[in-house]
Amino acid sequence: MLTFDFTNCCIPEAEFDALRPEVLRAHTVFQQWRKSGDAVFFDLPDLPGLTDGLHQKAKEIAERFDNLVVLGIGGSALGLRCLVQALLSPWHNLLDRKGRKGRPRLFVCDNIDPRTFALLLDHLDFSQTCFHIISKSGRTIETAAQFFIVLKYLQEKIGKSWRDHLVITTDAEGGELRPFVKKEGIASFSLPAKLGGRYSVLSAVGLFPAAVLGMPIDDLLKGARQMTERCAHAELDANAAYRLAAIHALLEKQGKKISVMMPYADGLSLFADWYVQLWAESLGKGGKGTTPVKSLGSTDQHSLLQLYMDGPNDKVTTFLRVEKFHDQKAMTTVRGVSENFSFLEGHDLGTILNVQQRATAQALAKANRPNLTVTLPELNARHMGQLLMVYQIATAFAGALAGSNPFDQPGVELSKKLTREMLTSS
Amino acid sequence: MLTFDFTNCCIPEAEFDALRPEVLRAHTVFQQWRKSGDAVFFDLPDLPGLTDGLHQKAKEIAERFDNLVVLGIGGSALGLRCLVQALLSPWHNLLDRKGRKGRPRLFVCDNIDPRTFALLLDHLDFSQTCFHIISKSGRTIETAAQFFIVLKYLQEKIGKSWRDHLVITTDAEGGELRPFVKKEGIASFSLPAKLGGRYSVLSAVGLFPAAVLGMPIDDLLKGARQMTERCAHAELDANAAYRLAAIHALLEKQGKKISVMMPYADGLSLFADWYVQLWAESLGKGGKGTTPVKSLGSTDQHSLLQLYMDGPNDKVTTFLRVEKFHDQKAMTTVRGVSENFSFLEGHDLGTILNVQQRATAQALAKANRPNLTVTLPELNARHMGQLLMVYQIATAFAGALAGSNPFDQPGVELSKKLTREMLTSS
Repeated sequence: MLTFDFTNCCIPEAEFDALRPEVLRAHTVFQQWRKSGDAVFFDLPDLPGLTDGLHQKAKEIAERFDNLVVLGIGGSALGLRCLVQALLSPWHNLLDRKGRKGRPRLFVCDNIDPRTFALLLDHLDFSQTCFHIISKSGRTIETAAQFFIVLKYLQEKIGKSWRDHLVITTDAEGGELRPFVKKEGIASFSLPAKLGGRYSVLSAVGLFPAAVLGMPIDDLLKGARQMTERCAHAELDANAAYRLAAIHALLEKQGKKISVMMPYADGLSLFADWYVQLWAESLGKGGKGTTPVKSLGSTDQHSLLQLYMDGPNDKVTTFLRVEKFHDQKAMTTVRGVSENFSFLEGHDLGTILNVQQRATAQALAKANRPNLTVTLPELNARHMGQLLMVYQIATAFAGALAGSNPFDQPGVELSKKLTREMLTSS
Repeated sequence: MLTFDFTNCCIPEAEFDALRPEVLRAHTVFQQWRKSGDAVFFDLPDLPGLTDGLHQKAKEIAERFDNLVVLGIGGSALGLRCLVQALLSPWHNLLDRKGRKGRPRLFVCDNIDPRTFALLLDHLDFSQTCFHIISKSGRTIETAAQFFIVLKYLQEKIGKSWRDHLVITTDAEGGELRPFVKKEGIASFSLPAKLGGRYSVLSAVGLFPAAVLGMPIDDLLKGARQMTERCAHAELDANAAYRLAAIHALLEKQGKKISVMMPYADGLSLFADWYVQLWAESLGKGGKGTTPVKSLGSTDQHSLLQLYMDGPNDKVTTFLRVEKFHDQKAMTTVRGVSENFSFLEGHDLGTILNVQQRATAQALAKANRPNLTVTLPELNARHMGQLLMVYQIATAFAGALAGSNPFDQPGVELSKKLTREMLTSS
């Protein structure tokens, strides 16, 4: 299991004790959200039918196609990108089919930059490409615009069998895409009612492409289930998710308005982005909410650490570390380059990276800057399931503690409305 | 030239007027920094010998090798990565040699994640690979550790001609690497004294690999020079860099402690990361400094915008936009999918993206949240030179205004010291 080190949080136990009535109240709210379906993410790992047909379809697509292109934006894309980065080779798309273990290359189009998209379409052999379209409502402007372009290309280049190149994940009944799926008989997966994009990684949104890429999604769900079991009760000492939420709430009162997520592993870099979108959209409302920030160790020790150590004391930093790295290369300090590196002798990169993480945590603590450390024993599907689940629970529970609704997003509507108006009138 | 729109800054002109004496004082400080060499970045575009031998060596490496691997960390890597993203195809490494216009693939190793590095080394054909090592002092732990591994591989796999696979960019005289370069006769470039990594993109650090990849570095320098000319005088109305610094200083007094950099173009996404490292390390000191945050439009409209619109009013957002995108694909809304997308009809992705940016800026302004917009007419080398230079000047000048030294980084030392101690004793 993941382990959590709260030693450097700089919060006296008495403050947690004082918070316990609030925790009990918020726990009741959270349980109501589970009943109403708002917090359906919590129960996804045990949802009947969650993976029905998914393995079979994934196998079929993986065997038939050389490229999987995912059209989706925001949380719908970041969860998958996070899994890919953690569990596949960082050089996956550069490898040949054998190096990719027989799996397709993956392209996630989570922005509508016209150049990126056009150059990708130029690069792809459409006869070898499957598109997975993700939009619960079917009303996402970006995904719709990309889908229209792709559909035209498919119909022109592939002809009658264009439908075989599509998989659409959308609402079970409502939305703009379901009628199209039914009419044309396109392969599709359904999303549970009330499941928002930012909480959707453990639904078909993340699971289907993950399965196509050969990731062990059952391990992922098993890890998530282990975490829900651990976080089912209102006990701050045993429930890591509630503890995380409580720490952030107490530190916010001390003026820590910024929450830094700093993994020391490339494979967790996009997890930090996923956390940032989840935390910001769930909790930033009604004038409240701390600002989540992504950093990456050890790279950002060479820049942002200056601000974190010596700037305003307005941050709490969460470190993520991987205890055991695989695939390492031995390092031998080479004589003749410099005599000043003898302290590196005999260490591998993983050891250096993890020592840097400990050193930075200590340095921050010495400067009275609160921080905590989450350790993954290894970077695998089970631990990723645990990690994704504990932060979804922590985020939703932080909403319950703050009296915010962590499942809505009223603040993004005005920009969408203005966009529609401007496009209509131009 | 770039254009700057400060309409939504929410600062009365009288506040700028009141700041003018401070601006004059800071301008004097900045000129002293130019004389002392601290602000050498400003004068790089006109530095005699800056590109001596660079084009020739770049041509030679590009013709001889299929892969260029850059070992460097922090600012030394981000400036280059930013240029690559802005000026090359996002799919560069996936293309064949012809698609890459005869240029090598590029790998920037700016972290010591052991898995990323090991899997890269497994993937590379060393006989076809050149390594560019960047460390001014030669004392950067990460770069040294990676270099030791690479050197051993090269000597084992390539034999006597291993030296031909190296280019080292380091201090002209001092540091750990210069004696090695001299002794072994390795190709190298020198860095001006006092040039810090975060201000080094327009030195050999960024220029040499950019030239190997075929980027027009003379245009880049021309753009930078155009910006230094525009920003040479202490006039807030004409000097965009000083104006940017002044806006941030005035808004900080209003409680805007977070500076969001939000490009609406994939090609500028890493520019935002580059800005973040530059701003944080230069200004986050002595208990002062705002926190820079990266966002990406339109993607983050689906998450972070919620916080920016409806969370605490503690941010200033800078939008970057590209006026004219090339390589677009036509979009036709396809009948039969949904009738609700007629407002997309006839628009291309670039238009939609830029309308979204304007809509978001307006939405923030309506919510009394200050923002400004920087527009690049096109995404090319000249405009990137302007953009990189204006933000280097703005950052250093913000230091002068705040009474901080924007060229040191005392806060990163303790973690380094603890790392050395832990590695020595373990």
